[in-house]
Amino acid sequence: MSFYDATVPAFLQILGSLGGTLSKAEAHCKARNIAPEVLLGARLFPDMLPFSKQVQIVSDFAAKSCARLTHSEVPSTPDTEKTFEELRARLANTTDYVKSFKPAQFEGKDVADVTFPVGPNTMTLKGQQFLNNFAFPNFYFHAATAHGILRHNGVEIGKRDFLGVK
Amino acid sequence: MSFYDATVPAFLQILGSLGGTLSKAEAHCKARNIAPEVLLGARLFPDMLPFSKQVQIVSDFAAKSCARLTHSEVPSTPDTEKTFEELRARLANTTDYVKSFKPAQFEGKDVADVTFPVGPNTMTLKGQQFLNNFAFPNFYFHAATAHGILRHNGVEIGKRDFLGVK
Repeated sequence: MSFYDATVPAFLQILGSLGGTLSKAEAHCKARNIAPEVLLGARLFPDMLPFSKQVQIVSDFAAKSCARLTHSEVPSTPDTEKTFEELRARLANTTDYVKSFKPAQFEGKDVADVTFPVGPNTMTLKGQQFLNNFAFPNFYFHAATAHGILRHNGVEIGKRDFLGVK
Repeated sequence: MSFYDATVPAFLQILGSLGGTLSKAEAHCKARNIAPEVLLGARLFPDMLPFSKQVQIVSDFAAKSCARLTHSEVPSTPDTEKTFEELRARLANTTDYVKSFKPAQFEGKDVADVTFPVGPNTMTLKGQQFLNNFAFPNFYFHAATAHGILRHNGVEIGKRDFLGVK
């Protein structure tokens, strides 16, 4: 299969499933009279990032990784979302952006250099290594951490929600 | 790059980093006089799996996914580990097993059917889809959940530990 097949569907799966998880979290708040900002600001530990930021980072790793891999302009999205609805819109916009890439844009990009920021530095890897050793682990890390925050707060979701399996 | 390059290095990265995380968790227990079984049995929510089981599942997704993708005999490992040392040994054994695969075994396997159990049923996907839509999301989910359990319990680790960056 193509490098596009190794990349885009993986991002789309979790962007979609996380949107569904957000809806369950929002319904949980409504059913229990929990102010949405409580769950949106929840963390697994005080020096970890809150739920809403985890979702924003998931969105960024999907969008920016596709851009970097295809040597496209890297999009910059301000993290302004303050509600479940706004976070769902962020994920939906990211989904549209990721879907806008064409398989041809990924051709040969598995062996092309990708230079990307890591903290204050930059690093250069081949596309395949960037995807597997940086983009995917970061993307899934923040998606699973978002899931874990909700689970820890009693939202009734499971791994099927994470995987987006009906 | 080859389908081997899309698969094996990703598993090895997290198997290695999780071994390092286990050592930090063990040191945390010693420094604070915490019985290791407390952390090994910690969960983010009562109906979630404990830390030790998360590690065992990470190990299994790496080993079994490589086996299924290459149409090799699927290894079965009893989940008997009760200490940090035993879990590190489990990860080390899995690392050796994953390293034993040769690139040639993965040739053409991205487009070959993989049939695998999902709960009481089986599912068949092309190798690339199995990897991206099932093996990777599950593998990273349990690795990140293991990380989250330790973070929630105050173990001083960060995303660099998850990624295995020195």
